[in-house]
Amino acid sequence: MYSWMDKIRAVEPYVPGEQPKDSKIIKLNTNENPYGPSPRIKDMSLDTNMFRKYPDPRAGLLVDKLAEYHNLKPEQVFVGVGSDDVLAMCFMTFFNSGKKILFPDITYSFYDVWAEMLRIPYERKPLDKDFKIVKEDYYTENGGIVFPNPNAPTGILVSVDFIEDIVKNNPSSIVIIDEAYIDFGGETALPLIDKYDNLVIVRTFSKSRSMAGLRIGYAMSNPVLIKYLNDVKYSYNSYTMNMPSLILGSEIIDDEEYFVNTVNKIINTRDRFTAALERIGFSVLPSKTNFVFAAHKDIPAKEIFDKLKDRKIYVRYFNAPRIDNYLRITIGTDEEMDRVISELLQICSATK
Amino acid sequence: MYSWMDKIRAVEPYVPGEQPKDSKIIKLNTNENPYGPSPRIKDMSLDTNMFRKYPDPRAGLLVDKLAEYHNLKPEQVFVGVGSDDVLAMCFMTFFNSGKKILFPDITYSFYDVWAEMLRIPYERKPLDKDFKIVKEDYYTENGGIVFPNPNAPTGILVSVDFIEDIVKNNPSSIVIIDEAYIDFGGETALPLIDKYDNLVIVRTFSKSRSMAGLRIGYAMSNPVLIKYLNDVKYSYNSYTMNMPSLILGSEIIDDEEYFVNTVNKIINTRDRFTAALERIGFSVLPSKTNFVFAAHKDIPAKEIFDKLKDRKIYVRYFNAPRIDNYLRITIGTDEEMDRVISELLQICSATK
Repeated sequence: MYSWMDKIRAVEPYVPGEQPKDSKIIKLNTNENPYGPSPRIKDMSLDTNMFRKYPDPRAGLLVDKLAEYHNLKPEQVFVGVGSDDVLAMCFMTFFNSGKKILFPDITYSFYDVWAEMLRIPYERKPLDKDFKIVKEDYYTENGGIVFPNPNAPTGILVSVDFIEDIVKNNPSSIVIIDEAYIDFGGETALPLIDKYDNLVIVRTFSKSRSMAGLRIGYAMSNPVLIKYLNDVKYSYNSYTMNMPSLILGSEIIDDEEYFVNTVNKIINTRDRFTAALERIGFSVLPSKTNFVFAAHKDIPAKEIFDKLKDRKIYVRYFNAPRIDNYLRITIGTDEEMDRVISELLQICSATK
Repeated sequence: MYSWMDKIRAVEPYVPGEQPKDSKIIKLNTNENPYGPSPRIKDMSLDTNMFRKYPDPRAGLLVDKLAEYHNLKPEQVFVGVGSDDVLAMCFMTFFNSGKKILFPDITYSFYDVWAEMLRIPYERKPLDKDFKIVKEDYYTENGGIVFPNPNAPTGILVSVDFIEDIVKNNPSSIVIIDEAYIDFGGETALPLIDKYDNLVIVRTFSKSRSMAGLRIGYAMSNPVLIKYLNDVKYSYNSYTMNMPSLILGSEIIDDEEYFVNTVNKIINTRDRFTAALERIGFSVLPSKTNFVFAAHKDIPAKEIFDKLKDRKIYVRYFNAPRIDNYLRITIGTDEEMDRVISELLQICSATK
């Protein structure tokens, strides 16, 4: 026992998903995008000598570009080191009342981790039997509300009206909608930030923009809430976004054509893959994301997970109540998903 | 007044130093290194397609390289988005007892900002009349200790024995030594991490390695404390270090020759500049950093600061007790510092 133990913040260590190095592995376990970021950054050469200076603390290059893209004022955009950084800053900035914050029982696995780490009380509201959010559960006194739309790992989307009802019924709380997967067929709640003063929309470059390796996320809201976020960020680390992120991140925003094409490819592959899964005995939740959440009628998910892993296909299995018979499978290329189907066919027939 | 105001974390917004865009400005206000990072990264081309994947959460490429460089085990190294991120994580991880943490009254301006933001009680211990840390002030019950060595903005170094006394006298506290400037002529306390279980050494790539724009900092300690740091980091954001940081950061470590040469150039320029300042009526604290802290015998610092700014030379002025007659001037190239001296000569003679 160490004599300084009373000084330590004890946290339940979060274990990040596997990042295997074997390039033969088909990696469908972390919702990465198979197509890579816009090729227009391929031949960009960065002036490495400028790295001697601190980056712009305002991250102006990227903030201004995102504001323009979304038709907002720059004061309405906040950027961070991936949406995890942005969401953690939101928790730190907006969830300080001591009242319980609310989020679904089945949702992004970091919400309770942040709440625990930041000593924020919280309550998980159960999804219904179809894995849908019950909006009336959120019409109660609370310290804040957060959920992804579409939800993860279910992939299920709610409508903008649904979100508006929650925002409207909680004028004294900040509502954070994590739109990490919104580009894969969902409708954004972004227009509501002009109508309500308590809504924050969070996005990421890691999924639809295929730039997980650069770590870029952002929040959009009214200038008042964005200023509070910036005040906390400046009190934590003034220079979070490094120069390659600012330069390469702002550059790919201009390539709308590539963005739309690759997103549409993933949507088409997802719908084709879903139909194929259903043909071989899976039930698949209706996904508006770049992954599907599926359960087989006969074979336990853990068994399929292990057998796929043996065949060098990595998907995600959650050993958690209600979802422990589901697999979350990221949508890769058509070729990759065909390979998954053919392996699953073998696994299913061998198990019969 | 908003009805959600009770949810907001109100912080004193920290104002980061100016980052002017005018390239004619001689920028000596944020302790940047004039020489740029090792030229061996100039012609490196990054495979932008790999950005589609998340970076290694362990940041292994960089952690392993730093461990090798410092003759440590990888479990003794923690990396973050600049030393500000590393220090903020240290505050979050190690300063949780509710007891007051201790640091000097004149020191890095972020310590009290982090303490305020994270609700950590603190006490500032006054430097003596020569701006030196009084080690006996730290032999009292506390929740942790942090200071830079050399201290900033004074530039004054303490010995390794001095640090050992503080570490030894505080077995129940974690002691964090921020060695941001240690490469400019100081002796590191690093060997003490094998002898004591309560010491953490923090470093940055922003000063001696001239890579402020990439945002890389790191901590070195025993594997137990590093594991606590990683547990908190993984509970906050698993992937803080982006791929360009990992790749370019680990690459420059191999260029020891360039590193030693540019650091020595800055040391030589500093000593030459100090002598020149003294000749024109400044008293200069003995600096072991890449900046000097200087006061003129007749002319108030604020006046010199404003006049230098008019002449497109940016230095740093702190409007704070005890140091409001000092200027902090970063060491640039010989040419830049000659220009500063010649402008100062004009300013001083015009004021007589």
